[in-house]
Amino acid sequence: MNCILLPAANFSHPYAYINTASQIEHVNKVLGAQVGDTLKIGELGANLGTAIIDSITADKIQLSAVVLNIAPPAKLDVTVILALPRPKVLRRLIMDMTALGVGHIILINSYRTQKSYWQSPMLARLDEFVLEGLQQGVDIIVPTINLKKRFKPFVEDELASLITAGAIVAHPYTELSLAAYLQQQQAACFAASIPLVSANTVNKALPTVVCIGAEGGWIDYEIELLAKQGCQAVSIGPRILRTEAAVNVIMGQWLLHC
Amino acid sequence: MNCILLPAANFSHPYAYINTASQIEHVNKVLGAQVGDTLKIGELGANLGTAIIDSITADKIQLSAVVLNIAPPAKLDVTVILALPRPKVLRRLIMDMTALGVGHIILINSYRTQKSYWQSPMLARLDEFVLEGLQQGVDIIVPTINLKKRFKPFVEDELASLITAGAIVAHPYTELSLAAYLQQQQAACFAASIPLVSANTVNKALPTVVCIGAEGGWIDYEIELLAKQGCQAVSIGPRILRTEAAVNVIMGQWLLHC
Repeated sequence: MNCILLPAANFSHPYAYINTASQIEHVNKVLGAQVGDTLKIGELGANLGTAIIDSITADKIQLSAVVLNIAPPAKLDVTVILALPRPKVLRRLIMDMTALGVGHIILINSYRTQKSYWQSPMLARLDEFVLEGLQQGVDIIVPTINLKKRFKPFVEDELASLITAGAIVAHPYTELSLAAYLQQQQAACFAASIPLVSANTVNKALPTVVCIGAEGGWIDYEIELLAKQGCQAVSIGPRILRTEAAVNVIMGQWLLHC
Repeated sequence: MNCILLPAANFSHPYAYINTASQIEHVNKVLGAQVGDTLKIGELGANLGTAIIDSITADKIQLSAVVLNIAPPAKLDVTVILALPRPKVLRRLIMDMTALGVGHIILINSYRTQKSYWQSPMLARLDEFVLEGLQQGVDIIVPTINLKKRFKPFVEDELASLITAGAIVAHPYTELSLAAYLQQQQAACFAASIPLVSANTVNKALPTVVCIGAEGGWIDYEIELLAKQGCQAVSIGPRILRTEAAVNVIMGQWLLHC
């Protein structure tokens, strides 16, 4: 928790209060903060800033001198389409994608997504995982999360409209590597005489849709259907990573504009 | 488990056997494999390949037609110096670094490493986590792991000899971004008329030592001591990631030669 995010209802300029147990515990136990200390806070959907602790009780921390003058970091210009993973790893995946700044997340069915995953109580806790991710990543803008329980209708009817500048699907068993794909895109920018050492240029080379499978990846039928809609299959090399690790490795390319 | 790794003692050409409970369970429950099926296997420290299941009992799976003709993927040319993290996340960090192909791992003390972490029973299980990482990443070469319980003597007396082509230390609160740092290195290669769209060139731009803090990062004293030995502090942007996520984001740059 690198900042404490509060809903608009907890603010009354220049005051605010913390009344969520996990946040109060964090202030007390992890930060060991005292009355008079400054906290990093944020208002959900608004700005980041600071406040001073006025009083601490078991169920409420009163804040004063609230200043919210720091804009949140930019979101990554990408939609991640993720095959719904095992409930056990869903929390960390949503946290990590949120902390990384993914703006749009679509959880989709896939052949290797077990039906029981869609009944998991974890799916009712997505807002909580998003809040954890925002507080980890120091952001206040909630990503959109959509659930698509039917793979084929989504891919055939909705996916194309999301692809504005290229799309990839991570697939361990494919020849083209993500590195080679990005280099091709960079080379195309270079050929068009766009200066290469520029974050902006590199941004242009990054696709705006990334599809990532769950454990076991996509089956051939899924890869073919995604390819028909314009998703280029790319691998991250001969090594196969856990879904969480793969998401961070791949999205790291966006985070680092590289 | 994307391949099943066995020690040399389990091989007797062209036969081999699996006698570890977790591997037997994986073959039975996750793969649902039967007698006659082909398994992806590897010999630790040797090669990857395949074998056919001859028989399955509760405590042993006999394999025949063992062929070990696939060389393991190259290791990343980098030493990761990681502040010893909470025991809870140590397993996943070692697994992920191993799966990513980090060749050398040094677990080091830091101000924010609690003393109790060094007494954790998890430290006796590093070999097990490495095996999990190798079986995840489809590799058979064990990374070296060294434990350095004293920060200052290690940094002052041993670190410099590890730095052959630049070193970085990840530090959220620093101005230079990893992206900018890598672009500077790329630009230097470009100025030296080395073709830019080449994995080899990009490799040259990647430092060979990466220092990553645990939760809460490094303190200023540690950053200064590391800087004196040639470690450039770089950030991965305004977002602060979990250690695991940061490791994957940063090492992803090596994995993807980008």
